[in-house]
Amino acid sequence: MSSQQQFESVEKILSKLPPEDHQQIRNVLYGTHTTQLHLPDAETKARDYDLELVSCRFDSAQEQLRAPRVVRVGIFQNKLPLPPNSPIKDQRNALFKLAEKAIDTAATGGVNVFCLQEAWNMPFAFCTREKYPWCEYAESAEDGPTTAFLKELARRYNMVIISPILERDDVHGHTIWNTAVVIDNYGDYLGKHRKNHIPRVGDFNESTYYVEGNTGHPVFQTEFGKIGVNICYGRHHPLNWLMFGVNGAEIVFNPSATVGTLSEPLWGIEARNAAIANSYFTCAINRVGTEVFETEFTSGDGKPAHKDFGYFYGASYIAAPDGSRSTGLSRTRTGLLIAELDLNLCRQIRDHWNFQMTQRLDMYAESLSKAIKPDFVPQIIHKN
Amino acid sequence: MSSQQQFESVEKILSKLPPEDHQQIRNVLYGTHTTQLHLPDAETKARDYDLELVSCRFDSAQEQLRAPRVVRVGIFQNKLPLPPNSPIKDQRNALFKLAEKAIDTAATGGVNVFCLQEAWNMPFAFCTREKYPWCEYAESAEDGPTTAFLKELARRYNMVIISPILERDDVHGHTIWNTAVVIDNYGDYLGKHRKNHIPRVGDFNESTYYVEGNTGHPVFQTEFGKIGVNICYGRHHPLNWLMFGVNGAEIVFNPSATVGTLSEPLWGIEARNAAIANSYFTCAINRVGTEVFETEFTSGDGKPAHKDFGYFYGASYIAAPDGSRSTGLSRTRTGLLIAELDLNLCRQIRDHWNFQMTQRLDMYAESLSKAIKPDFVPQIIHKN
Repeated sequence: MSSQQQFESVEKILSKLPPEDHQQIRNVLYGTHTTQLHLPDAETKARDYDLELVSCRFDSAQEQLRAPRVVRVGIFQNKLPLPPNSPIKDQRNALFKLAEKAIDTAATGGVNVFCLQEAWNMPFAFCTREKYPWCEYAESAEDGPTTAFLKELARRYNMVIISPILERDDVHGHTIWNTAVVIDNYGDYLGKHRKNHIPRVGDFNESTYYVEGNTGHPVFQTEFGKIGVNICYGRHHPLNWLMFGVNGAEIVFNPSATVGTLSEPLWGIEARNAAIANSYFTCAINRVGTEVFETEFTSGDGKPAHKDFGYFYGASYIAAPDGSRSTGLSRTRTGLLIAELDLNLCRQIRDHWNFQMTQRLDMYAESLSKAIKPDFVPQIIHKN
Repeated sequence: MSSQQQFESVEKILSKLPPEDHQQIRNVLYGTHTTQLHLPDAETKARDYDLELVSCRFDSAQEQLRAPRVVRVGIFQNKLPLPPNSPIKDQRNALFKLAEKAIDTAATGGVNVFCLQEAWNMPFAFCTREKYPWCEYAESAEDGPTTAFLKELARRYNMVIISPILERDDVHGHTIWNTAVVIDNYGDYLGKHRKNHIPRVGDFNESTYYVEGNTGHPVFQTEFGKIGVNICYGRHHPLNWLMFGVNGAEIVFNPSATVGTLSEPLWGIEARNAAIANSYFTCAINRVGTEVFETEFTSGDGKPAHKDFGYFYGASYIAAPDGSRSTGLSRTRTGLLIAELDLNLCRQIRDHWNFQMTQRLDMYAESLSKAIKPDFVPQIIHKN
């Protein structure tokens, strides 16, 4: 199905309601009122580059001892600029060019921390189960061509950039990982995180290409706050979100690639629930559009072979620790979402709700230690 | 604010949209299409009793080796029939009468498992910080008057009944607990669960009355499936939900009492996220209406003393493991939601998404065991 046949967004439909109705259910469905940012120059650029631009400001309270720690975050969702089977260098260069436009627009909009979508510099080809040419996209996290390209932009724009790529680890058996690289605002490599939870769902048995990450739950201390990256399928795992919070994350990015009728109702729920449960900001990023491959493949779902695995529905959004969320990017266009947020809100909400104080991690550390044993006996109450 | 000034429901507003728009965003916001049940006799009873009645059927797939395990669940949200400061026996008897109407209606609608709201047999008086008369509502879980009353109904209607009450534990220092009592469909006491996570949020510092539960995460084996009860504030804690799943729950009830603009945007997210993450059904139940007390109290929010602590917005709903959810009960009326579900869907969704197979509990058991130590060092990546 093409983007033309897709509806644009939930928010666009909701805006057709009478104003009072719209306001009332928007309060329930989107939480605390957010405002748009005034970004005329970024809007001009976005128009020139044919990018959708959505913006949002989350409120926070003034404190006496801490100044606000206001940060602008940019998240980018995009279609492939070329067909999936285009030569690798052409595809990658076209994606570089597109990312540069997005990052330039983000810089004009004052963005401090920018995150691309999962495996952003390639087609999301794991449905094909073909190793070549796709494995050729894999590169060194530290000094591959993609990292080199983004280092230059990070330095130029004084921006932290998160770059989710396919990583080739030459030191350890030339293995491949699904990895997010973090580049700081001086253009230096800060570190990486490897996807913790690997899907084996329908088209997405990604363990054909890479397995469960071995980098724990790192939180990257940047000049613009402590950030973590929960890659794609990790959003279904509350413990993955939790550990980034335990390690001190204030913003957790969730670069993803997801399609279809089964995952879309989950999309607005999971990253937002994580923001609530862990009192941090979450940024959910999805691809957009359909990627049609040259060779057909099957999907283990009883259906005939086909050449695409569904429509990436975009709808990237940002959620705040108080449970409110931004308007999403559309379901149909390449676009940039810029949000202004005060990191102080995280601790304010922790103090308000007390979730961390009341979460009884000691009890769960013990419960889980028992649950993983082969002779674990679940706590089931039977009738005497 | 009275019920008259409140808007009825999100769904009612959405239904004003043009049909195609409505269908499209309903698919995203509510997931897989659900249908209403045909319950003419229950509808007649509900009308006679002045109860709202909402119904819903969740779909599942046919299997070759297992017959469908179809269960009807009923959840009940209600206003207080008398003012909060009415004599205890009057209030309790009026609530008994109301519950009997709801259970009678549920039985007519074929309900097998029925759950009442949190502390259902009393006003939600914990905001007052007064011990009397409220502590007098506490009673034995095993054989107090409320359990005795419901045992009779459970037997009469062949129905499992979950009864969240204030428990008085005479054996252990006459302590008070926030407890859910489970009565089986023969009218026998099956067991109890004590609320694991206790809020200290604004008006709700419930630890004035009771502390963190000591009953673990029991799952009750009934004739109609394995059920758990996550009481109120426990819905904010993903690990609480998780452990009921680890112990095998197929339906987890969340009897709650929550008000206000800060919690309402969270309401539709949390129990639904739990259904997704744990591949079970969740049933979220909230009170409805305003409870105005005779003595004023303050709420630690810088505002003057007042006699009510806000509007319980109802909106009880049921979510399925595939992330779909029912229409909610209204924000304004006492009502009963009946859902028909096939417990087989839990394992079908587990097999589809593989969340349990990929959740790496061993890693998290170790991570949490480290995180609880006083000398824990978070995994933070600094620049070299």
